[in-house]
Amino acid sequence: MPNSTATDDLRIAVLGVGIMGADHVARLTSRISGARVVVVNDFLTEKAETIAAGIPGCRAVTDPLDAIADPEVDAVVLATPGPTHDKQLLACLEHGKPVLCEKPLTTDVESSLEVVKREAELGKRLIQVGFMRRFDEEYMQLKALLDAGEFGRALVLHCVHRNPAVPPSFDSSMIVKDSLVHEVDVTRFLFDEEIDSIQILKPAVNPGAPDGIQDPQIAVMRTVSGKHVDVELFVTTGVAYEVRTELVGEKGSAFIGLDVGLIRKGASGTWGGTITPGFRERFGRAYDIEFQRWVDAVQHGSSTGDYTDGPTAWDGYAAAAVCAAGVKALETGLPVTVDMVARESIPGA
Amino acid sequence: MPNSTATDDLRIAVLGVGIMGADHVARLTSRISGARVVVVNDFLTEKAETIAAGIPGCRAVTDPLDAIADPEVDAVVLATPGPTHDKQLLACLEHGKPVLCEKPLTTDVESSLEVVKREAELGKRLIQVGFMRRFDEEYMQLKALLDAGEFGRALVLHCVHRNPAVPPSFDSSMIVKDSLVHEVDVTRFLFDEEIDSIQILKPAVNPGAPDGIQDPQIAVMRTVSGKHVDVELFVTTGVAYEVRTELVGEKGSAFIGLDVGLIRKGASGTWGGTITPGFRERFGRAYDIEFQRWVDAVQHGSSTGDYTDGPTAWDGYAAAAVCAAGVKALETGLPVTVDMVARESIPGA
Amino acid sequence: MPNSTATDDLRIAVLGVGIMGADHVARLTSRISGARVVVVNDFLTEKAETIAAGIPGCRAVTDPLDAIADPEVDAVVLATPGPTHDKQLLACLEHGKPVLCEKPLTTDVESSLEVVKREAELGKRLIQVGFMRRFDEEYMQLKALLDAGEFGRALVLHCVHRNPAVPPSFDSSMIVKDSLVHEVDVTRFLFDEEIDSIQILKPAVNPGAPDGIQDPQIAVMRTVSGKHVDVELFVTTGVAYEVRTELVGEKGSAFIGLDVGLIRKGASGTWGGTITPGFRERFGRAYDIEFQRWVDAVQHGSSTGDYTDGPTAWDGYAAAAVCAAGVKALETGLPVTVDMVARESIPGA
Amino acid sequence: MPNSTATDDLRIAVLGVGIMGADHVARLTSRISGARVVVVNDFLTEKAETIAAGIPGCRAVTDPLDAIADPEVDAVVLATPGPTHDKQLLACLEHGKPVLCEKPLTTDVESSLEVVKREAELGKRLIQVGFMRRFDEEYMQLKALLDAGEFGRALVLHCVHRNPAVPPSFDSSMIVKDSLVHEVDVTRFLFDEEIDSIQILKPAVNPGAPDGIQDPQIAVMRTVSGKHVDVELFVTTGVAYEVRTELVGEKGSAFIGLDVGLIRKGASGTWGGTITPGFRERFGRAYDIEFQRWVDAVQHGSSTGDYTDGPTAWDGYAAAAVCAAGVKALETGLPVTVDMVARESIPGA
Repeated sequence: MPNSTATDDLRIAVLGVGIMGADHVARLTSRISGARVVVVNDFLTEKAETIAAGIPGCRAVTDPLDAIADPEVDAVVLATPGPTHDKQLLACLEHGKPVLCEKPLTTDVESSLEVVKREAELGKRLIQVGFMRRFDEEYMQLKALLDAGEFGRALVLHCVHRNPAVPPSFDSSMIVKDSLVHEVDVTRFLFDEEIDSIQILKPAVNPGAPDGIQDPQIAVMRTVSGKHVDVELFVTTGVAYEVRTELVGEKGSAFIGLDVGLIRKGASGTWGGTITPGFRERFGRAYDIEFQRWVDAVQHGSSTGDYTDGPTAWDGYAAAAVCAAGVKALETGLPVTVDMVARESIPGA
Repeated sequence: MPNSTATDDLRIAVLGVGIMGADHVARLTSRISGARVVVVNDFLTEKAETIAAGIPGCRAVTDPLDAIADPEVDAVVLATPGPTHDKQLLACLEHGKPVLCEKPLTTDVESSLEVVKREAELGKRLIQVGFMRRFDEEYMQLKALLDAGEFGRALVLHCVHRNPAVPPSFDSSMIVKDSLVHEVDVTRFLFDEEIDSIQILKPAVNPGAPDGIQDPQIAVMRTVSGKHVDVELFVTTGVAYEVRTELVGEKGSAFIGLDVGLIRKGASGTWGGTITPGFRERFGRAYDIEFQRWVDAVQHGSSTGDYTDGPTAWDGYAAAAVCAAGVKALETGLPVTVDMVARESIPGA
Repeated sequence: MPNSTATDDLRIAVLGVGIMGADHVARLTSRISGARVVVVNDFLTEKAETIAAGIPGCRAVTDPLDAIADPEVDAVVLATPGPTHDKQLLACLEHGKPVLCEKPLTTDVESSLEVVKREAELGKRLIQVGFMRRFDEEYMQLKALLDAGEFGRALVLHCVHRNPAVPPSFDSSMIVKDSLVHEVDVTRFLFDEEIDSIQILKPAVNPGAPDGIQDPQIAVMRTVSGKHVDVELFVTTGVAYEVRTELVGEKGSAFIGLDVGLIRKGASGTWGGTITPGFRERFGRAYDIEFQRWVDAVQHGSSTGDYTDGPTAWDGYAAAAVCAAGVKALETGLPVTVDMVARESIPGA
Repeated sequence: MPNSTATDDLRIAVLGVGIMGADHVARLTSRISGARVVVVNDFLTEKAETIAAGIPGCRAVTDPLDAIADPEVDAVVLATPGPTHDKQLLACLEHGKPVLCEKPLTTDVESSLEVVKREAELGKRLIQVGFMRRFDEEYMQLKALLDAGEFGRALVLHCVHRNPAVPPSFDSSMIVKDSLVHEVDVTRFLFDEEIDSIQILKPAVNPGAPDGIQDPQIAVMRTVSGKHVDVELFVTTGVAYEVRTELVGEKGSAFIGLDVGLIRKGASGTWGGTITPGFRERFGRAYDIEFQRWVDAVQHGSSTGDYTDGPTAWDGYAAAAVCAAGVKALETGLPVTVDMVARESIPGA
């Protein structure tokens, strides 16, 4: 329905459109305001072309470095394999292009340090690393409570990182590099300090784990100030995706990741969570979904061909009829029959 | 940073920019993809102008009917007072403009029916009513489970609708028209059938309620097929916003709105919820927030002036250093010290 | 092992040893201190004799009125069918015997009133009615919090009474007389006031309920001061035994019966429960069980023929060995191997 | 009220009547069936005499070894200080007296082993050690589920042992010997195997802990078959008594000690607990309390001088009146007023 209008949307190149990259393309196209994907790239050229074809104003570019250099690209999302990050990040820095880089930054410590140094020389930060847990509501709540002094001094962090299964190519060190890496960042995020040492304990292995993999593992980390962090890493549980953290402080403790929201324990001797204080906190997300679906239905049509993907005028009429009966019932205290026309009497309603 | 580009964003007029309407303007501008607010209107002209001034390409229009008729407006959001809905909805129908109308559809049953009839004559639905609970994750889950036969035939619905407080102008009948109306729609949404009768019981009033208001109220509704629905309406609890529903069926029951996700009880004699099955369900929303904040930081600058609003290259380097130590620790089982350069040695990092 | 000793145990006659009465005999014999069953009676004489034969110093008596009159009986437990209560209670009053009477007091209002009057004439209360929920920890907690002013003035009570199934002989009025009767007493217990009126709503029946039974039912009661009580009665759920109460007051609300302990919601905007404050609250019941089992094992022998039904000396030795290694490990921070002899080296250990 | 009767109660000597021993005396006297305390002993003679004076048929004995040897003592409870256990346990063995010994068995590994050997020579076990967690409902449930194969092979155990505070005399090694000892036994109880090695990690200490105490501590244990156990020991939390265990197995995991009953996670991708299946499980404990209080009220009188400590005949009458109205309401569907006489019209009711 709409005509073309001029905008100042951020023009983004997504490099790497495997599972994660394709997810990010969909995200930027259909859920993120103020941005559009104008370039996609993948070492599987065809895949990039297919995706580009589905997005108005988007094209596939063969060489990732060309995509980064493209003057019509304002910013870059890096979802390419880790070993290529090094070169691509340096190219972003060279062209002054902001970049959101999926973890890892690079695949070894030396090249990571080199990237840090090159960016530092520029005098402004262009790189963001994709540690998305920092944007998860429960982690944000936990961090906010900790910073507000709710738990006093933090002492201990217990983490659990469980996957139902991993791809056959997974090996023991990937449990450290791909799974533990998130808890490494969570630790640094929550505590604002570096990790000083790490130990990895190896329990008897899960009979259901692929041959040769040490699973589960127990990582024990210690921060510079002496905080203790333990992490159960168990990637072949057969159950579900369980990511859990318990922070224990001087004045209380809190759990996140129990599937019931943040649970606090404190000096009052009680445990529990917060009731959503108002309709915005309770239904704000529902409003967002309602509006996004309505916009999509109006732009692209709903499944019924109507310009709506939700409650219709009939639903509004029915509610009015019941509430009118309700107001009458409020006076009498007795049951009141709702008075409505038959829907069938209005073809098309 | 970005230059202007051509788009096919949906061009929207928001009529009424009080608390709810202003919320919707912000929503469409900063969280919804594929739409932009091009016109705002309010009977307080100045308020509309202030809001328009803050949005590139948006202007204030004095007459709501002009806004609806405007050829540069593709669709309309109605957040005006209920008594004006009637006329504005008919104008939308006349101009063939899709409209998302905040509840109520209109303020009386007759005019609601008239709107339904006029739309039905057009042969396509242009009106969506703002019953946003249908887009809330827990209500959607409950509906999906019910439709999938999880509870067998639905028999009873217990609802609670509690507000901490209401404005001084609130009266007893508004509890029916403004609060109960949501449960009316929830009942019709879950059960796909109409409500046949309604009774309202009046307990001794809350000493803390304003003089003359019947609060709490207990509404008892019966659907056409005989399902029982009761609703506690209590709008001066002093506690929080509590909206809860328990569905009781032939084969089990479920709670939503307990602040712990959907809880099921079933023939297995167990109660409980679902563990988030994978990282997408667990962290999908975090990815959305991460990307929206990154886009905003790149477009408008972060608080630090950097093109990032999250983990930096240094965070990526630190994670790499800890994981490298972790891989070593995996071999030895003993504590391994993490080897990192001092952050201070790299000015700007 | 023990010899006979003199005691001042209360000598009890249990009248009626069907399912409930037999349970009470077992309770008095094996879990209650300071009482012993000396007489049992049942209209099935043989059943009474079998039970009496299993209890030292207990005999069967054929006529319940003889049992009540028996000079060697100090007190009576009445678990006979309801229609016989009337006569038996009056006999207890006549002989001045304290009696614990399973509900109902009698099967009609007039005879109940007659019993009340006859007891009142005695000037002391001899009758206790078996409304056992008043002794349930969660109901006691709820009552204590309410009386302490935690919720301000009580306004509303929502109850649920669900059974998985009922015997084939159950009819609609028994749902009122046998199930609702508990919530009647709960209401009176919590609110310390009488119930003024009652209404029973009849939803469409559960397809799984026996023919002709109105199940579920919704009872709505109003107390003298205007408090509202609603009760969902649903006795063919196929799920489990669910007895739940939510009290809503002027200053907050609380749930019991959710299988997670008492949950409170209050003006702090939080929901949650109490952490058990100390080892007595946490493990006091475990101590009771430990001691009762040990006493039973010593008196009657354990399954192994040993004078213990729990952790043995070997368990004490093993704990000592691990703790000794732990104390060493506390000094070094390194793993310490536990030093223990092989259990096989000590025949009989 | 009762006359003296002959019984075969187990005659018990309680040695040591400090806090724990006095608790056990009260337990045996008022909550345990089939046992009576006939002898108490304490190195504070006066304390023993005071306690003995309050129990019919009980006397104080000065020398613990005399108490053990006393022919009128059938069995012994040992709540004396740990260093005396050695000698007292050997005396119990010598006299063939069953003994329930509070932990520790003895205070060092060698004497513990000696006790084990001496008992083994007798050919029957007389000693039970007071690891009461084995009798806690949640630990028993966890053990039963594990043994039933619910979790497959057990792999990891995460424990938390938190106290709000400890006496001033507490030192770092007591955290191992007095707190960790329980988790040592829990591990051995759940896994039916011995612990092979132990490591204790020392995080930065809680600022609120007394000077010189290492608190919290993290104990890491490994069983003979390689199962990993970690225990957070934190005895100055200022919060409450928190004792928690999570068992992680090949096919699922479970939590106990979260104050909400046992919570399971399994291959169905769900988390949750069990609904109490029937009235016995839900209210069995309430029946016990009801009966114990009734027995106590009849024997010793209630606070009102009546022979009841619960619902009275009036409560039975009121319930009958409401149910009679309910049965009428079931027919009409309309509100029915309850018909009752005024309580004041019956003096004494």
